[in-house]
Amino acid sequence: MLAEIKGLNEECGVFGVFGHLDSAQLTYYGLHSLQHRGQEGTGIVVSNGDKLKVVKGEGLVSEIFTENVMEDLKGTSAIGHVRYATAGGGGYENVQPLLFHSQTGSLALAHNGNLVNANFLKHQLETQGSIFQTSSDTEVLAHLIRRSGYPQLKDQVKNALSMLKGAYAYLILTEKELMVALDPHGLRPLSLGCIGNAYVVASETCAFDVVGAEFIRDIRPGELVIINEDGITSEQFAFNSTKSICAMEYVYFSRPDSNIQGINVHTARKNMGKRLAVEAPIEADVVTGVPDSSISAAIGYAEAAGIPYEMGLIKNKYVGRTFIQPTQSLREQGVKMKLSAVRGVVEGKRVVMVDDSIVRGTTSRRIVSLLKEAGATEVHVVISSPPIKNPCFYGIDTSSKEELIASDKSVEEIRQLIGADSLTFLSTEGMVGAIVKTDGTEGFCLGCFTGNYPTEIYPDTLQYYYQK
Amino acid sequence: MLAEIKGLNEECGVFGVFGHLDSAQLTYYGLHSLQHRGQEGTGIVVSNGDKLKVVKGEGLVSEIFTENVMEDLKGTSAIGHVRYATAGGGGYENVQPLLFHSQTGSLALAHNGNLVNANFLKHQLETQGSIFQTSSDTEVLAHLIRRSGYPQLKDQVKNALSMLKGAYAYLILTEKELMVALDPHGLRPLSLGCIGNAYVVASETCAFDVVGAEFIRDIRPGELVIINEDGITSEQFAFNSTKSICAMEYVYFSRPDSNIQGINVHTARKNMGKRLAVEAPIEADVVTGVPDSSISAAIGYAEAAGIPYEMGLIKNKYVGRTFIQPTQSLREQGVKMKLSAVRGVVEGKRVVMVDDSIVRGTTSRRIVSLLKEAGATEVHVVISSPPIKNPCFYGIDTSSKEELIASDKSVEEIRQLIGADSLTFLSTEGMVGAIVKTDGTEGFCLGCFTGNYPTEIYPDTLQYYYQK
Amino acid sequence: MLAEIKGLNEECGVFGVFGHLDSAQLTYYGLHSLQHRGQEGTGIVVSNGDKLKVVKGEGLVSEIFTENVMEDLKGTSAIGHVRYATAGGGGYENVQPLLFHSQTGSLALAHNGNLVNANFLKHQLETQGSIFQTSSDTEVLAHLIRRSGYPQLKDQVKNALSMLKGAYAYLILTEKELMVALDPHGLRPLSLGCIGNAYVVASETCAFDVVGAEFIRDIRPGELVIINEDGITSEQFAFNSTKSICAMEYVYFSRPDSNIQGINVHTARKNMGKRLAVEAPIEADVVTGVPDSSISAAIGYAEAAGIPYEMGLIKNKYVGRTFIQPTQSLREQGVKMKLSAVRGVVEGKRVVMVDDSIVRGTTSRRIVSLLKEAGATEVHVVISSPPIKNPCFYGIDTSSKEELIASDKSVEEIRQLIGADSLTFLSTEGMVGAIVKTDGTEGFCLGCFTGNYPTEIYPDTLQYYYQK
Amino acid sequence: MLAEIKGLNEECGVFGVFGHLDSAQLTYYGLHSLQHRGQEGTGIVVSNGDKLKVVKGEGLVSEIFTENVMEDLKGTSAIGHVRYATAGGGGYENVQPLLFHSQTGSLALAHNGNLVNANFLKHQLETQGSIFQTSSDTEVLAHLIRRSGYPQLKDQVKNALSMLKGAYAYLILTEKELMVALDPHGLRPLSLGCIGNAYVVASETCAFDVVGAEFIRDIRPGELVIINEDGITSEQFAFNSTKSICAMEYVYFSRPDSNIQGINVHTARKNMGKRLAVEAPIEADVVTGVPDSSISAAIGYAEAAGIPYEMGLIKNKYVGRTFIQPTQSLREQGVKMKLSAVRGVVEGKRVVMVDDSIVRGTTSRRIVSLLKEAGATEVHVVISSPPIKNPCFYGIDTSSKEELIASDKSVEEIRQLIGADSLTFLSTEGMVGAIVKTDGTEGFCLGCFTGNYPTEIYPDTLQYYYQK
Repeated sequence: MLAEIKGLNEECGVFGVFGHLDSAQLTYYGLHSLQHRGQEGTGIVVSNGDKLKVVKGEGLVSEIFTENVMEDLKGTSAIGHVRYATAGGGGYENVQPLLFHSQTGSLALAHNGNLVNANFLKHQLETQGSIFQTSSDTEVLAHLIRRSGYPQLKDQVKNALSMLKGAYAYLILTEKELMVALDPHGLRPLSLGCIGNAYVVASETCAFDVVGAEFIRDIRPGELVIINEDGITSEQFAFNSTKSICAMEYVYFSRPDSNIQGINVHTARKNMGKRLAVEAPIEADVVTGVPDSSISAAIGYAEAAGIPYEMGLIKNKYVGRTFIQPTQSLREQGVKMKLSAVRGVVEGKRVVMVDDSIVRGTTSRRIVSLLKEAGATEVHVVISSPPIKNPCFYGIDTSSKEELIASDKSVEEIRQLIGADSLTFLSTEGMVGAIVKTDGTEGFCLGCFTGNYPTEIYPDTLQYYYQK
Repeated sequence: MLAEIKGLNEECGVFGVFGHLDSAQLTYYGLHSLQHRGQEGTGIVVSNGDKLKVVKGEGLVSEIFTENVMEDLKGTSAIGHVRYATAGGGGYENVQPLLFHSQTGSLALAHNGNLVNANFLKHQLETQGSIFQTSSDTEVLAHLIRRSGYPQLKDQVKNALSMLKGAYAYLILTEKELMVALDPHGLRPLSLGCIGNAYVVASETCAFDVVGAEFIRDIRPGELVIINEDGITSEQFAFNSTKSICAMEYVYFSRPDSNIQGINVHTARKNMGKRLAVEAPIEADVVTGVPDSSISAAIGYAEAAGIPYEMGLIKNKYVGRTFIQPTQSLREQGVKMKLSAVRGVVEGKRVVMVDDSIVRGTTSRRIVSLLKEAGATEVHVVISSPPIKNPCFYGIDTSSKEELIASDKSVEEIRQLIGADSLTFLSTEGMVGAIVKTDGTEGFCLGCFTGNYPTEIYPDTLQYYYQK
Repeated sequence: MLAEIKGLNEECGVFGVFGHLDSAQLTYYGLHSLQHRGQEGTGIVVSNGDKLKVVKGEGLVSEIFTENVMEDLKGTSAIGHVRYATAGGGGYENVQPLLFHSQTGSLALAHNGNLVNANFLKHQLETQGSIFQTSSDTEVLAHLIRRSGYPQLKDQVKNALSMLKGAYAYLILTEKELMVALDPHGLRPLSLGCIGNAYVVASETCAFDVVGAEFIRDIRPGELVIINEDGITSEQFAFNSTKSICAMEYVYFSRPDSNIQGINVHTARKNMGKRLAVEAPIEADVVTGVPDSSISAAIGYAEAAGIPYEMGLIKNKYVGRTFIQPTQSLREQGVKMKLSAVRGVVEGKRVVMVDDSIVRGTTSRRIVSLLKEAGATEVHVVISSPPIKNPCFYGIDTSSKEELIASDKSVEEIRQLIGADSLTFLSTEGMVGAIVKTDGTEGFCLGCFTGNYPTEIYPDTLQYYYQK
Repeated sequence: MLAEIKGLNEECGVFGVFGHLDSAQLTYYGLHSLQHRGQEGTGIVVSNGDKLKVVKGEGLVSEIFTENVMEDLKGTSAIGHVRYATAGGGGYENVQPLLFHSQTGSLALAHNGNLVNANFLKHQLETQGSIFQTSSDTEVLAHLIRRSGYPQLKDQVKNALSMLKGAYAYLILTEKELMVALDPHGLRPLSLGCIGNAYVVASETCAFDVVGAEFIRDIRPGELVIINEDGITSEQFAFNSTKSICAMEYVYFSRPDSNIQGINVHTARKNMGKRLAVEAPIEADVVTGVPDSSISAAIGYAEAAGIPYEMGLIKNKYVGRTFIQPTQSLREQGVKMKLSAVRGVVEGKRVVMVDDSIVRGTTSRRIVSLLKEAGATEVHVVISSPPIKNPCFYGIDTSSKEELIASDKSVEEIRQLIGADSLTFLSTEGMVGAIVKTDGTEGFCLGCFTGNYPTEIYPDTLQYYYQK
């Protein structure tokens, strides 16, 4: 479904290169392929072995990095970031990578995920005289590193990481090194690849395909990888780590051409659709998906159910940032945007409409109504994930608990609210099984569905989420 | 397939409203839904019953029409245009609608299509002292109208239209009237609808859905419709008219949710895919379509052939105008953009790749190679239209004849050039049959496939095309 | 005084080059030095001997012509224009030079001045089927040229010029020629110079100094100069011509470093100040001028009167287009802009304030009050020109007659309105004598002072001015 | 003379308001009047009593603060800054005011001047774990405040100020207070005024005139003024203070309508010109000044010497940032910009050219040559300040010592280099006497002329200046 109308936003994507003359260019193309993970700001820090240089701004990769800008970004290693503003708010200074200079060297940070003890640590650091540049939780790591007493940067970083709680895939760039760290639960995806002798890291493997890199392996929970001119080394900085990757990465966030933990996202989604066809068999004439993220599941459903897949909904491709929203009065007259129902396909038909999730329910109601106005005689909504009942503390900008329609409504109540003829959610086991073909639900963070979070949640974090 | 990498570009879309207080806003949303027909320039002329006002510019609808701009565009009738620059070249002055002021009143023109005797008429008019403002063929109509001796505008327009040869869907707006004219062969689509008492016209019916209008009927070949405060009237200005609508509108140009001549475009494309499965049965593991325009045909092929449809190719959504093209050296290192093959889907598989057409062949070669690099063991290319062997003189910017790969190469030669394991084009009868379910090929312009054009082609037009 | 707060605006400046490889660059620098003559729009047309190319836009020379733009403007002859929108209104299409293409060749026009029979001619031409692109009177010449029956362009131009009435300095550029024409009364300045073998023409000689050109002579009233690769030729197209150059060019419009008809503008202004000291001897402590255009006259006054010249008023240099005007409430609290009085200079002093002219009187009142608030004990206003009682029809955007304070008020009434302790205007003879050191007032257009215009004024022109 | 071609740049201007509902608007107009002190960046921080909000950017006041931006800047106190980048380099993050948030409150800083022990203090602070956001020396104060152990902000600030060496006029804004501090030598100007019950502070009094404020007094060296809702209080934080105001503020930097230490700048400059006429009597026909800053001195010279003042040089007003510099070849052909000599005034004349200072000498050479090319028979250069032989460490961006022409050349050598017929510098006593009418040189920093600096200069500061 469309992120912008859904209230479910990934906050970040990261990309890094070490040891390639075109490091900034590769980062540009890599970030571009991760643009779906964040459209509000982007930045690249490049090192020429001697100095770090940053360019960042609020906007899309292709808006911030013009040819003139790229010509000035030369170096052999680089890290980049695309962001959706969640914790910390917007503004230029919160755009990542963050770059810190000191008389002993520079340090750049790019972070995907969200810490749950950031406010606690910030308060401690400020009491000791630290001044924070940003309102982002990412910056905490820099201060912890600078205040760590260890003489070696590697030990400073390990010591600092050990104080963080929450979700993080961190890229750390200095003049001479690229460090890559994943939180002890591996909540966010992070993969390692190579182009010849150069190493690349990225939030998703689709970035490797785009830059012509070869996939090596996924970064492990609690692992710190250090790449410098002596090669690549790896250490565990946390040992009680248990993999709990975010299930919504498969359901909604990641690109269908990415593989996470070795599993193709499109295939996982198609399997979710097939499972749904088994869990929710419906007599209908056509199956349609809500573009773009639900198409795979819809095709899977159609295939398994033996009902033709049709393009019953179409997205308006050119809806950009500057697009003028229709006034209330125009909307009442029927002016639509973003999504249209295809009358020629759904008129007089019983329609199965496949979507990936329901957050506030308003969009689902609108789409059901679009289909009915276009002549659908029945609209059966099937959702390729379980009901989202709880907020995410790890970097997904779900609405607050009160706004989540499933937090206090039954499936039947939701069905009535969205006006569907039937409504089915995929079971938790069905979803996990579609991804990994096992019976249990091990290895995934299912917090937003079940309310069981892999980490402790700090009171001030809870407060932040409930104040929103 | 992607227009920008294919060399096959529609030149225009038009939209008009008469009798609605939000005429400019409706035109904005209407044009937005026609944006796929032209992304290089756009304009709106609005009438408040007393004066015409124009805003136009080079760029997308959402770029040119900002909220400030729209606040100044108030009136009860309006016409708008989106364009891809073909005949006439670019530049602000060629962006339509063209607006002509005189001491006896103003006249605005929006034109979809291409005249074949424009240069001939222009030469005549200049000899008589006319000065042309633009290099567009559209302007000829304004001069013919102004020089016509008839006292009534309607007769001036009919007289002027009778001198034009070629393809045209014209919207003509004055302070008091909206006139709508379609060429005697009906080469371009043009439909009439209504919103309450207001009338709307649009190149495609998808615009009606977006603005909440009801479809009334298609404009007839050789018809002049006049809408003013007395209501709507219609006259034939040409009687030897025979419908010859452009088949490529179904194959490639129009939006899948539009109906042309009562036939849904997605359904026509899906039928083309089904026909292809019959004309070209292939043993394969997966079917994939080239996004976006070939998805419908691919789904039809998969359904008819009983082979799973998979998302084997994915388009990078954020490739905009300012995107930096990879250098030759980066491209050789494997940096891709616009289109990626999904390794997790195609690796080790025999792939049927469905595309809508082949123009120069370069893109097909690139996509076949993407799929093979991603591990496809066989790539069978099936095309949902016949080979394009001839230029279009009616408003489609095909490459010149020398660049059309099918103009002098056999199917087998093309197959070798693009590196496919097999290559099949849909037959002309198959294509037409998929659209209208008849046996013949009546009612369509098939000039680019067959070389038989519905109108005379003037020598200077030919020269223009062969000089390109 | 400051044009923007005065309501007295020059409409244009023109610059042309023939026979120089850097013709566009020279035009850029030339226009830049003429920027004071018009800040609303600018354009350059360049010829490479084969084709004309135009760049124009609304804004300053340095805003429209960026380095990228200039790189594309290559040729050996060029004409350029800066404009202040008067007759014809604003908008991109009215920015000059106007460029007209036809199948027999192109023609570009740049015009300084205003025609008084433009509407009459336009009406005639439209009746014959001509379509006007702009609302500017300049375009009339192009249509007259195109409709002239003569086979040679030179004769077409002479025939067309003979039909025009009013003020014009025209530059006409074709692929092969630069033509230069001045109206039979020579109402606007226009000079000829050279750089080696290349010829240049400009509205003011300051442009020659800036581009390193040598002054040859002024263009004569009623003269048509033709420059092409065979050299330079000149013809009179009007024989009843009598020189009547606009006196306000010396008083206010032109740059102090320009020479008009051999007379330096700064020197003429200083002489006006000296004359004023004789015509209006005042007992005072300091003399101050209103920046920028009245400084020369103020220095002349101070020198002749033996009173120290001081910087009693200072202009805020950085007041640009985007500057935010203070609200009424802030203005009442004393927030000033554009002009400040220098307390340290005027406090406790009797001040002679020299200005060049009074149009509506509002600015004079504001400045007198600024000086008094800053502590001046007396403010004596002396004006280096006679009262402006009548509109200008020749290209100066004075306010309409009702707005001209001197049109129906005596000097004493004006003095009271502006709050000065005394007010003196220079006599007409004094002004002319300061310029040419003769006794009469021959050779000048003094229409705005005397109401005697050198040409007939057409009824529809009058109507236009009285409707404003 | 023109700052941009001279290599002598002021680094900053500051403006602050406390207790006014239009505080941001007043700051906008105040900064605008201080724009001559820095054109590279500007910012405003506003407090609504509860929260600080910042807007800043690289560009002019009128470019950064658009109407939209200003509408969002509401509050009752504000500080603002205009800057020319010197120590610390450019970039958005170095644009002031700097704003620091912490969980105990926010703090904004605006600084005019330059510290001489910034690097020393920075090094100490980083060793203790501080992370600096900017490369500006201004930020040091924030860290010193945050690390000070005192419980009260006032004492934290006093303690922190006591550690700084060099030149500083600091404005410090918190949610509730405005603090104003001047270094113990009072090297930079800083004045206090009021608008009704509201207080304003500004680098120059011209800002008071523009916003309608009344001058109260100058801030004293070593004084800390604290303004909050309880009123205004003042303390000395340094007692060994001796006033040493920068003499170049009178000679060149400040606006002629400002008063510094009660002395009007225009008057001081005019007196310098009069002194020069006594120290350097010359037989000549005309006196001319280099616009803009030397006009006052030139008028004083002309008055005292009894030689007419003429406008022999004229500045091109529209030379903006985007102006394209002429190529070397165009410059050799005589294309000029920025400054033109007025042939009509100087031809055949013996000219006294008054300028305020000579830095590298290149500009003087160019102007002398402009005057001679325009026909001046003799050019006598008189300079209204002594030779600049030494760098400034207090916030003026002079060239490094090697670039200062007077650092190793005699007056006669400089005369030859610039091609003048004679060259005279004003004596140090003459300059000081023209300002304060005393015999000694007490009360001024004359470091750039004499090499005697009022503070210690730290080795790493020296190194910075000699590395440039």
